[in-house]
Amino acid sequence: MAKINRDYTKLRSSYLFSDIAKKVAAYQSSNPSADIIRLGIGDVTRPLTPSVIEAMHKAVDEMADEKTFRGYAPDLGYDFLRSAIASHDYRKRGCDIADDEIFVSDGAKSDSGNIQEIFGKDNVVAVCDPVYPVYVDTNVMAGRAGEFAEDAGRWSDVVYMPCLEENGFAPMIPSGDRVPDIIYLCFPNNPTGATIVKSELQKWVDYANEHGSVIIYDAAYEAYISEDDVPHSIYECDGARTCAIELRSFSKNAGFTGVRLGFTVIPKDLKVEGVRLYDLWARRHGTKYNGAPYIIQRAGEAVYSDKGQEEIKGLVKYYMDNAAYILNGLKKAGLCVSGGVNAPYIWVKTPEGLSSWEYFDRLLTVANVVGTPGSGFGPSGEGYLRLTAFGNSERTKEAVDRIAGIVI
Amino acid sequence: MAKINRDYTKLRSSYLFSDIAKKVAAYQSSNPSADIIRLGIGDVTRPLTPSVIEAMHKAVDEMADEKTFRGYAPDLGYDFLRSAIASHDYRKRGCDIADDEIFVSDGAKSDSGNIQEIFGKDNVVAVCDPVYPVYVDTNVMAGRAGEFAEDAGRWSDVVYMPCLEENGFAPMIPSGDRVPDIIYLCFPNNPTGATIVKSELQKWVDYANEHGSVIIYDAAYEAYISEDDVPHSIYECDGARTCAIELRSFSKNAGFTGVRLGFTVIPKDLKVEGVRLYDLWARRHGTKYNGAPYIIQRAGEAVYSDKGQEEIKGLVKYYMDNAAYILNGLKKAGLCVSGGVNAPYIWVKTPEGLSSWEYFDRLLTVANVVGTPGSGFGPSGEGYLRLTAFGNSERTKEAVDRIAGIVI
Repeated sequence: MAKINRDYTKLRSSYLFSDIAKKVAAYQSSNPSADIIRLGIGDVTRPLTPSVIEAMHKAVDEMADEKTFRGYAPDLGYDFLRSAIASHDYRKRGCDIADDEIFVSDGAKSDSGNIQEIFGKDNVVAVCDPVYPVYVDTNVMAGRAGEFAEDAGRWSDVVYMPCLEENGFAPMIPSGDRVPDIIYLCFPNNPTGATIVKSELQKWVDYANEHGSVIIYDAAYEAYISEDDVPHSIYECDGARTCAIELRSFSKNAGFTGVRLGFTVIPKDLKVEGVRLYDLWARRHGTKYNGAPYIIQRAGEAVYSDKGQEEIKGLVKYYMDNAAYILNGLKKAGLCVSGGVNAPYIWVKTPEGLSSWEYFDRLLTVANVVGTPGSGFGPSGEGYLRLTAFGNSERTKEAVDRIAGIVI
Repeated sequence: MAKINRDYTKLRSSYLFSDIAKKVAAYQSSNPSADIIRLGIGDVTRPLTPSVIEAMHKAVDEMADEKTFRGYAPDLGYDFLRSAIASHDYRKRGCDIADDEIFVSDGAKSDSGNIQEIFGKDNVVAVCDPVYPVYVDTNVMAGRAGEFAEDAGRWSDVVYMPCLEENGFAPMIPSGDRVPDIIYLCFPNNPTGATIVKSELQKWVDYANEHGSVIIYDAAYEAYISEDDVPHSIYECDGARTCAIELRSFSKNAGFTGVRLGFTVIPKDLKVEGVRLYDLWARRHGTKYNGAPYIIQRAGEAVYSDKGQEEIKGLVKYYMDNAAYILNGLKKAGLCVSGGVNAPYIWVKTPEGLSSWEYFDRLLTVANVVGTPGSGFGPSGEGYLRLTAFGNSERTKEAVDRIAGIVI
């Protein structure tokens, strides 16, 4: 008799974004004329840029000709892309990362979900609260989370690092009895939009090296960093090569949410129990993955051309202008807001002591604007709502004006 | 202190295709003028067909326009593709499969590697011998394989189903004490090229239903079936909806090895311990995967158009003409060969009692032809060599003539 993976059945059945979708659909159905503006899900809306489009057309044509046709890609990525990434995203910033320390994948979601697999079951995992749900759920599926306590809204074996107003919505280094073995950090943060300066990140790196912990550093939003002292990569810190894995994505800087491309960096110096994590991840790629599509890898390469870089600066500016409008508009309306300066997310404190879902409902029904309830990302997100800057510019302004209208 | 996944360290370090590549490179380096023909790796060589190319160009253009741009895809695949698959590959063949029982992915390799994850650790796994290495290695990584016995060349906890000459290189239903919980079957078989008729496959389905086993049925090569009584899908058998998962690929029928598209079918009737595997796999997709690229899913859809179907028939015919040439040419030369009728693989018995690697070396150095040693797929592959029909037609003929030349 076959047996299922019992850890899967522990997963919480409700899913934030499907719950939101159901509420929105129900409201729209009862109010067919309501003009709803969605600033909830972190999906981009601007089209791909000309360099990327041109590169993909060219690659498609190559696939039509037997002389230039490409079959199986190298498991870890084409050299042309790994080299462009290592050079532009790392060595140009003074980070010591070799081309072959880049593992190309179909996106940071897959990598952030799969990376835990190279670690044993008996690791203590630490996550921010609120947190991107994938980090937690994939550890639940692997049996690392323990049991869920309904009252606390937390898993028994996970170390939570609250991101609260008093710390600028960034986590504090754990000081309790349980030293985490694997620490998930996400800067610029999803969902709070918080960042930390390099000297602060250095403390995390030092902590990890001192305790033999591994930091899984999700830098999917690094393109949105606008301030000088905020690090773009954890490898800007001394010693990160021996304790940190970095995850990156093309989704938010180049609009690739529907194109699917990302990468993971694992320095060869990063050893756990004397074993290079580099080798374990390479083996996982080689065994369970067959590389990102050639056409998509050429699209990624085009992002690094001079023209491609100019174009994505334009994309990021478009969204960050939205972020600034949201941030300033809501501030002016008297709301407490943060994020939005180095991140495409704005973290709004609910007014009048409303719960996250109460404020969500109010915005939906009164302003016809959809946000994401902060409590959906963890108990410390209660009392907050996340808005994203990825919408159309005019619609975003309209949404802000509507929200401001109901607050004053 | 972080801990690694110790099961990863149990994996055999050598890897068949990299060993082959090293041997070929060494020979080429010592013999720079040698004109080597590669019939080893199962990668396709013909370009993508016009319908697919046209669909991809169109989809790329859609991504360039904000009105038609697509962000995140549905986790389980776009409806247009799931519907085309379910209709053409299943319902048209009389198989009762609904659109939403199709899970679109980036390929059968990923799916065949990841599928074991929804099962508990304490399942007994059965595989063919010889076997596609991914089935075994991913179970090793999950801790299900036990220990490797060097002398036997086998894992202690895995049930092996030898595919021997006396059974037409197809596995026999296990009759030993250990009843397998999860049974990996691959028809048409990689590497032997064997198939079984529908009445034989029905026995496997009956066995699985009787014992509560789950069959993971890899049908990646179904497009190569030329004989009427060979089933294209396990769902042609009665009762398969309650015991079988089927894996499919666009790699070999439409030449998508570098495009990356496949799918898994899980009927909603398939329950293990009362839980629908459908729900577990959907949860895995939703948590660890973000869907195949829009452009690639449109390419897949184009394969199902009338024109697309005609084109891929031409592709398959090209390769099957190669298979026929190899099969007949080597038979005429006095070699014992099988496969190649319903599969793109030809399974060659080594002459003169040579080992697989000895014959590999002989073909490489005397005929300058690269095959794949059968022993690389498992101990029962010893004494065999796999040739693939995926090469260029002229080169394949040349290779066959050379091999025939050294045998006679």
